[in-house]
Amino acid sequence: MSPSTSLKVRLPAFVFVLEAVMIALYAVFVTYDDDSNTKLQNNATNPMENSMYRDYQYFADVQVMIFLGFGCLLAFFRFYGFSGMVFNFLTATFAIQWAILIQGFFQFYHDGKIHLGIINLLNAEFACAVVLISFGAVLGKTGPVQLLVMALLEIPVFAVTEWAVLKYIGINDAGGSILIHLFACYFGLGVTFVLYRPSLSKGHPKETTSYESDMLSVMGTLFLWVFWPSFNSALTIKGDDQHRAVLHTFLGLSSSTITAFALSAMFNKRGRLTMADVQNVTLAGGVTVGASVDMMISPVAAYALGIMGCTACFFGYKYLTPFLAKSLRIQDQCGIHNLHGLTGLISSTAGICAILLATEETYGPSMYEIFSHRAPPEGDPKLLELQVLIPGLKPGLGRTAWEQALYQVAAIFSTIFAATVGGLLTGLIMKLPFMESPSDESCFDDQLFFDVPSDFHSLEVLETVEVMDGNVKVD
Amino acid sequence: MSPSTSLKVRLPAFVFVLEAVMIALYAVFVTYDDDSNTKLQNNATNPMENSMYRDYQYFADVQVMIFLGFGCLLAFFRFYGFSGMVFNFLTATFAIQWAILIQGFFQFYHDGKIHLGIINLLNAEFACAVVLISFGAVLGKTGPVQLLVMALLEIPVFAVTEWAVLKYIGINDAGGSILIHLFACYFGLGVTFVLYRPSLSKGHPKETTSYESDMLSVMGTLFLWVFWPSFNSALTIKGDDQHRAVLHTFLGLSSSTITAFALSAMFNKRGRLTMADVQNVTLAGGVTVGASVDMMISPVAAYALGIMGCTACFFGYKYLTPFLAKSLRIQDQCGIHNLHGLTGLISSTAGICAILLATEETYGPSMYEIFSHRAPPEGDPKLLELQVLIPGLKPGLGRTAWEQALYQVAAIFSTIFAATVGGLLTGLIMKLPFMESPSDESCFDDQLFFDVPSDFHSLEVLETVEVMDGNVKVD
Amino acid sequence: MSPSTSLKVRLPAFVFVLEAVMIALYAVFVTYDDDSNTKLQNNATNPMENSMYRDYQYFADVQVMIFLGFGCLLAFFRFYGFSGMVFNFLTATFAIQWAILIQGFFQFYHDGKIHLGIINLLNAEFACAVVLISFGAVLGKTGPVQLLVMALLEIPVFAVTEWAVLKYIGINDAGGSILIHLFACYFGLGVTFVLYRPSLSKGHPKETTSYESDMLSVMGTLFLWVFWPSFNSALTIKGDDQHRAVLHTFLGLSSSTITAFALSAMFNKRGRLTMADVQNVTLAGGVTVGASVDMMISPVAAYALGIMGCTACFFGYKYLTPFLAKSLRIQDQCGIHNLHGLTGLISSTAGICAILLATEETYGPSMYEIFSHRAPPEGDPKLLELQVLIPGLKPGLGRTAWEQALYQVAAIFSTIFAATVGGLLTGLIMKLPFMESPSDESCFDDQLFFDVPSDFHSLEVLETVEVMDGNVKVD
Repeated sequence: MSPSTSLKVRLPAFVFVLEAVMIALYAVFVTYDDDSNTKLQNNATNPMENSMYRDYQYFADVQVMIFLGFGCLLAFFRFYGFSGMVFNFLTATFAIQWAILIQGFFQFYHDGKIHLGIINLLNAEFACAVVLISFGAVLGKTGPVQLLVMALLEIPVFAVTEWAVLKYIGINDAGGSILIHLFACYFGLGVTFVLYRPSLSKGHPKETTSYESDMLSVMGTLFLWVFWPSFNSALTIKGDDQHRAVLHTFLGLSSSTITAFALSAMFNKRGRLTMADVQNVTLAGGVTVGASVDMMISPVAAYALGIMGCTACFFGYKYLTPFLAKSLRIQDQCGIHNLHGLTGLISSTAGICAILLATEETYGPSMYEIFSHRAPPEGDPKLLELQVLIPGLKPGLGRTAWEQALYQVAAIFSTIFAATVGGLLTGLIMKLPFMESPSDESCFDDQLFFDVPSDFHSLEVLETVEVMDGNVKVD
Repeated sequence: MSPSTSLKVRLPAFVFVLEAVMIALYAVFVTYDDDSNTKLQNNATNPMENSMYRDYQYFADVQVMIFLGFGCLLAFFRFYGFSGMVFNFLTATFAIQWAILIQGFFQFYHDGKIHLGIINLLNAEFACAVVLISFGAVLGKTGPVQLLVMALLEIPVFAVTEWAVLKYIGINDAGGSILIHLFACYFGLGVTFVLYRPSLSKGHPKETTSYESDMLSVMGTLFLWVFWPSFNSALTIKGDDQHRAVLHTFLGLSSSTITAFALSAMFNKRGRLTMADVQNVTLAGGVTVGASVDMMISPVAAYALGIMGCTACFFGYKYLTPFLAKSLRIQDQCGIHNLHGLTGLISSTAGICAILLATEETYGPSMYEIFSHRAPPEGDPKLLELQVLIPGLKPGLGRTAWEQALYQVAAIFSTIFAATVGGLLTGLIMKLPFMESPSDESCFDDQLFFDVPSDFHSLEVLETVEVMDGNVKVD
Repeated sequence: MSPSTSLKVRLPAFVFVLEAVMIALYAVFVTYDDDSNTKLQNNATNPMENSMYRDYQYFADVQVMIFLGFGCLLAFFRFYGFSGMVFNFLTATFAIQWAILIQGFFQFYHDGKIHLGIINLLNAEFACAVVLISFGAVLGKTGPVQLLVMALLEIPVFAVTEWAVLKYIGINDAGGSILIHLFACYFGLGVTFVLYRPSLSKGHPKETTSYESDMLSVMGTLFLWVFWPSFNSALTIKGDDQHRAVLHTFLGLSSSTITAFALSAMFNKRGRLTMADVQNVTLAGGVTVGASVDMMISPVAAYALGIMGCTACFFGYKYLTPFLAKSLRIQDQCGIHNLHGLTGLISSTAGICAILLATEETYGPSMYEIFSHRAPPEGDPKLLELQVLIPGLKPGLGRTAWEQALYQVAAIFSTIFAATVGGLLTGLIMKLPFMESPSDESCFDDQLFFDVPSDFHSLEVLETVEVMDGNVKVD
């Protein structure tokens, strides 16, 4: 049975089975939350104070990032643009509906039901972003069934890790540097380690871009860039915290972008810019400010973090990715270890520093709202005092700064560990023979999965000519 | 006079005459509404409670759908990309400014003036969406003057139907499944029936896509997908109703998308995905949840509706569209009968079921707000009782569920009837000899209407080679 | 040293020096504003009333315009798409972070610090738009270092002019027709006058578009079109003023768009549409309504302004741009004098008319809020009277309508003067030998600055064939 024939059977089979499961689970477990249930509205509820109006803009912005941002960014291969954009669409859609259920059981479950509102959708989009980042590691070398299986398995591992870290360790990570970026990175590396293809270690003739695909990919970068402040601020506390998250994200991206251009020209042997740097390295600042994005780190710190993250990311692409591929058999296709791993580590470290440096002098009593685990525990008289100043402050665990810092370290290691193990196991399952993994020759090729328009073939012919030509012209 | 020469005269003539009419009508009839008139602001009005802030985000989101979503989606033909995207721009712009006037007379007219605010613009965008959907039926076979004439005539027919149905029949149709999708579909089918071109029944050599045009079209789909929750919720009651509309639309689209992938692979003879399915069938869920989008149908029902709508839409493309073209002489270019007609019918039926199943137990007293015609009439003591619980509840018509269901049925038939008749008559006018209808040979070809860049001709040459090539390679 | 080698050194050198300066200045001067500083939050502050929620949507919309709108629009050259989109990205990013500082010193500086919030970012984006408009004049003929130098110099000249005009002259210019569009236009013309290249006066073989680049550019236009209401209304007074700004912008764009199509077909010798008109002239209405966008000019006036601006812009492209290039040695690559200069002048004139026609009868007491300099001065008993009706009304300068009109005239001339002088001097600096100006032959060519994918060369070969072909086919 050829790979394309099996798509005819296995993709529908997989989808229909999952839809049956999903319908059963949604029917039994999913109901409306307080703000989407009309029965709970009365003369005491103000429609304009519905949670819808606090969260919907961020949800919509993140939607654009997920579907258009990632979609275009992943379409950078010349002969794999359909797959990049369309499998992103498929995987993201499935991942979100699945995450609504799985995260629902962990975070929105009470009275025997998952309670559904915009906030669940927003959380599910973050889980989806995790899957799409991991997808970057194996782009071009996996079929749609494999990708759906990856989403099917990654979402629960992520949801458990997220829940356990937030509930039992208790951390500050507003922009998701630890839980989203580090998790997604190491999960993806685990998967790609298992899916190692020795014959691709010297490249593949179709592993190439075109003028149009490079432009489209930059558009993806721009969608991500423009809405990243919404991503990093979507789940912060409302008010000044969310305000700072937007400012820091913008500044971090901003300094990271101009640094990326400088490094790209500087380390290119002919002093030209490399489109892959423009497409990826410019975004490093968005991840790097993540863990401390809502704290009073000062604008200059966000600016400096952008430069640091970008620099690490750039050199990661230059030296670490080839090293990982050659020495550790980790073929990280889009270099997610640079854009999400290295930056995530810097961000987590910066977050720890920001925690250690936080004082009531800088934050005022709000310190116990941002660093919620440092708030005095229930019954502590200082809690009552603080609650006068910050109404609605919740009791915390009375941690010191150092204690909180240690918990952050614990969360970093646990997250990386869970992600790596989860990724390795998921990779093993994705490698099973009936998973329709494309053969080495048909990697990076839309024809395996799509009816392609007739000009696809003339593009291929042109490519052959160009490569022969290119050797003469380019060097 | 060649068709392109006449564009030189007729397009400007048409536009300038209409602009003169529009200036006269705007001058005489259009003024500001209470929230955009500075004279009505005083120390009792709060600027932040201006209706601007309730509606603007939805307006902006729908703008993206209209201009970028439809624009890219309709650019899927290889040699008709300029026309698809640019005529969408022209037609949409004209349709909105015209709808502001026409709908204004029906919905926003009092004291001898049309009162203009964001809400009129939002309503006019919905009227514009109606025109653009109908446009899909005749894409590639109509010139810009014909399209403007279509908008000129369709907007009033739509506005009258909308007004009559809402005022005299009184229905629940928050997402516009009946008034927008069914109307647009049957109007478009009426037009295309009249514009039947026998010589195109065997296809046209330029009725083809390219790699780039397929990608662009998917981007259009993604813009529509991402903002569809805003579309379906824009005109619902604020608060939990709008909240549910977003949730249901997202779930419906989500299940519809993965179903579309499964069906596409399953019914393709080589098990490959078809880009036309990805571009169109994925969106079916957005229409299907429309009529019941604000009701308490439960999340699982929205999920199931997505699957049903998608399935009907997919088989519609596969079997019904060719049948309509061959047997009924209805050449539905983009298959709007599948994406808007079949799904609209399912949605309307689902809406009726939801109406019949609605109980005070599920909805609480808000039932009379959502199903506003079921509210007790003026003077009924039960109305006063309810108004204590739901302040601002308006008196209704005291209908029972069954009565409301029958009115829905009446609305469906009236809408389809008005749309079909309107479409047929409009088609007759569009067929008049001075309407610059392109000749059969110059259909699907940008050169008729645009100065094309020099590479357009080399694309044409390539195409010839590919088609000759393709016969050998693809089979 | 070849130009590309020098990019290797000079771009990084420039960026790193500026980053060091920026870090120093941000560290010393930039702190949080009241709404982003957590220390200033307490039980009297309501998080949902944070300025974040008043400004963020407009900021996000303008982000899309800057990065995707301008980015795609400027990518219209066939062999200069990378440069158009990517240098826009680089220049915009740098311009915003620089403007945050420079405008910060003029507008947000007190107690020895620049106070940073979303509102600064929004203002900086407007400053950035100024730079990007000027960029349009020299597109294709400047390298990235030159563009960064231009931003480096234009931002301070702009910030001083803006501050001086607003503080010492005091004008009404909500949509920025004077301060943004006229300034940007005459600055850009000043620069391009100095950078005059005689050898390009007969065109350049690469000064051409492709089918794909034209489509991409239309997408840029659509992004700008869709979000222009947010641009024009972002800095107006909240409430009905912002509401009107949206309405007027939409109407102006709308009439301008259909007029552009009519004129394009009418004045094309074969009655076909010209893509450059669709890409540029359609937008004229957005600028033309600018200066009076928040006033009670009536909807029909906005509609008429769109037509007037569009007409001036269209004939500007047709007759004035070639005249300027030939007779005045001003090579205005994107025709910014048409889209921003002529329209800006019409808009400013319309603003003056609106000021002269404003009466309390039309505006009510709010007149003194919109025309803030006409409010009675501190101590005037009429001020107290008005403050009862409009709480928070600030004392003004007690100007009459005619006085205000004269100040507007003064502002127009001062702005044009400052911009022209600034542009000329900036041009002289950009022309210095170490600025890496591309040679005449390598203008409009991505290869100078980018590693291009292999199909770039086959595009070049095709182009040669087409041009030879085109001479036969097109005429």
